[in-house]
Amino acid sequence: MGLLVQKFGGTSVADATAMRLCARRVLEARAAHDGVVVVVSAMGRTTDSLVALARAAHPDPPRRDLDLLLATGEQASAALMSMTLQALGAPAIALTGAQVGLSTDDLHTRARIGSIDTARLRAALDAGRVVVVAGFQGVSPGGDITTLGRGGSDLTAAALAAALGADACEIYTDVAGVYTADARLVPDARLLERVSYDQMLELASVGARVLHPRAVVCAKAHSVELRVAHAHADGPGTLITHESQDMEQIVVSGCALKAPIARVTLAGAPNQPGSAAALFDRLARAGVFVDDIVQTEAGATTTIAVTIESADAADARRAADAAVRDLGAGAVSLETGLASVSVVGLGMRSHTGVAATLFRALADAGVSVRNVTTSEIRITCIVGADDGERALRAAHDAFGLARRPAEPAAV
Amino acid sequence: MGLLVQKFGGTSVADATAMRLCARRVLEARAAHDGVVVVVSAMGRTTDSLVALARAAHPDPPRRDLDLLLATGEQASAALMSMTLQALGAPAIALTGAQVGLSTDDLHTRARIGSIDTARLRAALDAGRVVVVAGFQGVSPGGDITTLGRGGSDLTAAALAAALGADACEIYTDVAGVYTADARLVPDARLLERVSYDQMLELASVGARVLHPRAVVCAKAHSVELRVAHAHADGPGTLITHESQDMEQIVVSGCALKAPIARVTLAGAPNQPGSAAALFDRLARAGVFVDDIVQTEAGATTTIAVTIESADAADARRAADAAVRDLGAGAVSLETGLASVSVVGLGMRSHTGVAATLFRALADAGVSVRNVTTSEIRITCIVGADDGERALRAAHDAFGLARRPAEPAAV
Repeated sequence: MGLLVQKFGGTSVADATAMRLCARRVLEARAAHDGVVVVVSAMGRTTDSLVALARAAHPDPPRRDLDLLLATGEQASAALMSMTLQALGAPAIALTGAQVGLSTDDLHTRARIGSIDTARLRAALDAGRVVVVAGFQGVSPGGDITTLGRGGSDLTAAALAAALGADACEIYTDVAGVYTADARLVPDARLLERVSYDQMLELASVGARVLHPRAVVCAKAHSVELRVAHAHADGPGTLITHESQDMEQIVVSGCALKAPIARVTLAGAPNQPGSAAALFDRLARAGVFVDDIVQTEAGATTTIAVTIESADAADARRAADAAVRDLGAGAVSLETGLASVSVVGLGMRSHTGVAATLFRALADAGVSVRNVTTSEIRITCIVGADDGERALRAAHDAFGLARRPAEPAAV
Repeated sequence: MGLLVQKFGGTSVADATAMRLCARRVLEARAAHDGVVVVVSAMGRTTDSLVALARAAHPDPPRRDLDLLLATGEQASAALMSMTLQALGAPAIALTGAQVGLSTDDLHTRARIGSIDTARLRAALDAGRVVVVAGFQGVSPGGDITTLGRGGSDLTAAALAAALGADACEIYTDVAGVYTADARLVPDARLLERVSYDQMLELASVGARVLHPRAVVCAKAHSVELRVAHAHADGPGTLITHESQDMEQIVVSGCALKAPIARVTLAGAPNQPGSAAALFDRLARAGVFVDDIVQTEAGATTTIAVTIESADAADARRAADAAVRDLGAGAVSLETGLASVSVVGLGMRSHTGVAATLFRALADAGVSVRNVTTSEIRITCIVGADDGERALRAAHDAFGLARRPAEPAAV
C-alpha cells in the first residue's frame, strides 16, 4: 500500500512509555505501507507550561516570539519520537515545520498553510525512513517560525496527507473515535463507525473536541480520509469520509454540547448591510470567534445576536460597543451562563420532524430554549448553562443514539 | 559607542525574575551603545532535563535528533528574553541559530562554526531592535539544526561579536569573574582584573569553569575583548584581552584544580610516529578529549600517557586497547582517582624558579607529585585526587595570590 500519515496527540506522547506505544503502532503501519509520515503534538501539557512562561515574561506576549517559544514543544516531541523509533530499530528522521517545507502566512499564533514543498519529505521517504514531523508549526515568507493555532497538529497531518497524496491519515488521540455524544456526559454514547466530512465539521464546530474543524475542512477539500482512533487501545475508530447513502438513512448521527457560552446582542442598529459589517469587523479585529449569528429585522432597525465562547465575552462586548460608536446607533447587551445543544445528521435533509422531535424532548426534560439556529444538517438550541447536560442527554435519547447493551462502552 | 554583545548563562536566566534582571542590564547597555545583541543559554537545568528525556527514548540518542531536541532549550530562552525586553519597553526580536545565519559543519553535538551571515542581524539592529540570539546552536550545510557542544553559548557570543565587529563581548554568569582559584575551594581567592587570552585559555583548559576554552580561542583569533562578570551583582568582572606588560610582572595569575581525572598509559608501543597517531585516532573516534600528553622513549619502544576526564576512562581504555590491536604491540594500563593542579602565569617566561617554588610548596603540604607537564605559561602536576584541594591551596599560598583583608570576598 501507498503512504500513510499518522498523527499522535499530546496525551498519546506524554512520556517515554506512551511514546514507545505509539512508536510500535508506527512500526506495524510501516510493515504494511510504502512509507509512513508521523506528526506529533507537544508532550502532555507542554504547551500550557510554555504559555505560562510567556505570560510571566510579558502580560500580552508578542505573537512572533510566542510562536518561536510554542514551536519548541512539537520540535522536542518530534526529536524524541524519532529517537524512540530508532531505538526500536526503524530508521527515522525528525523534521520541524520549516524543514518539512510547510509554508504559512505571517499571521502568528493562527497562521494559515500556503503550500508544502515535499522535496525533503519525499527524499527521506525514498531513503526508507519514517519521517517524524513537528506538528502545529510552519515558516512564514520572512523565515519566521509560525504556529497554526488550536488543532494545528491535526491540520498539519491532514495537509501533509493531501500534499503527499497519502492513502490515509490516522489521527490518534485519547478517545476511541467520534461518539454520538461526549461519553463523559452521556455514558451510553455510541462510537460512530463512519461520519461524513460535513457531519464531522458540524459536530466539531458545536463542541465535539475530538478533531478540529480546520483539519476536517482540509481533508474534505483534498479528499483525504481521516480515521480517528485511540492511540493506546485497539479498535477501528471512526472513519471521516465522503457521504454515502447509508449515512443519510440515519436521521441524527450525533449530539454535542458547548458550555459555557455567551451571547452579545446589538439591538437598534440601522437596517442596512453596513451594520453587520461594522460589528463583524470589530469582532474580527478583537480576535473573537463567532459560533452562531442570528439577525432579525424590525422596520428601520435590525438586531444582531452572536454566540461566543465565555472567555471572549468581555472582548466581544467591547467590540460591539465600538461598532455602536462606528454606526452612531444601537445598544449592546451581554448574556452569560448559556450553553448550546446541537444535533447533527445528514438524514435531516430528507426526514421531516427533526426539529419537532428535538423541541418535544427538550420540553419533556423541562429545558427552556432561548434561541434556535440551523444549518442544512444541524439544529442548535441555546439553553441555560445549567440545563446543558440534561438537554444533551434528552436529545441523545430522543434520536435513539444510545448504544445497545451488547455494544462496548466508551474507552 | 558601537555594538555590544552580552551573553547570559543558564543560571542567570533560570526564571522570569532572573530574566528580568538580565533584561534591565540589557536596557542599560542599550542606552550606551549603538546596538546590543543578546545571546542566551537554556534556562537553568533545561539541557540536563532534555538529555534525560533523550536517554529515556534511546540508550544512545542519535546525535542529529539530539541536536534538534537540545536546541529547543536556547530557542525557548531567546523567545522569553525577547518578550521580557519588550515588556520593559525595548523593541526586541528573538532569532534561532539558523535564523541568525550561524552556519556550522555537520558534526552533530559538537559542531564547529563555519561562517555567520549577519544580514538579518544587521537589518534588525539597523531597525533599532535588540536582537536576542539562541546560543549553542547553528545550522548545517544540509539545513539540519546543530549544537556546538559544551561552552557553546559562550562561543556563539564571541563568534557573533567577531562577525559584527562588536566593541566588546560581555559574558554574564553566576560568579563575579575569573579568580586566582576556584573560590569554593580557596576561600581567599582574589578576583583578577585582567588576564590575557593565553592565560585564560590555560586556566580554562585545566579546570577553571567560568569560560570555555573555545570561546577564548575565538575571541583571541578575532581580537574580541571578553568581560566575564556576575549577571545579578554589580562589579567590574574580569577583562580577557591581549597581553600587556603589567600582566608579565605577575609571575603566577591563577591556579586551577581538575578532579577527578584518569590516566591511560600505552606502554611498549613501537617507537615510530604511527604509534601516537594510532592511539589519538582511536581516542578521537571514541570522542574522548585529552587533557595532557606525556610521551617517553626507551630504545625501540615508546610510552604514551594521556590524562582524561574520569567519565571518559572506560572509553579511553577501550580506544587504547584498539590501538594496541592496530599496532600489534603494546600494553594498556588505566589509573583512576587522580587530580591535576595547575599554575598559570605570563611571568613564568621571564621568572625562574616557578617550578621549584611549586614543588617545594607541594612537598611542604605533604602532596606527592606523580607527573608534571608544562606549557610556556603553565605548570601542571598530577596528584592523587584526595590531595587535590590541599595542593591547590598550597600553590595559591606559595605564589601570594590570596586577597588582602581589605578586598571584597568572592560573590
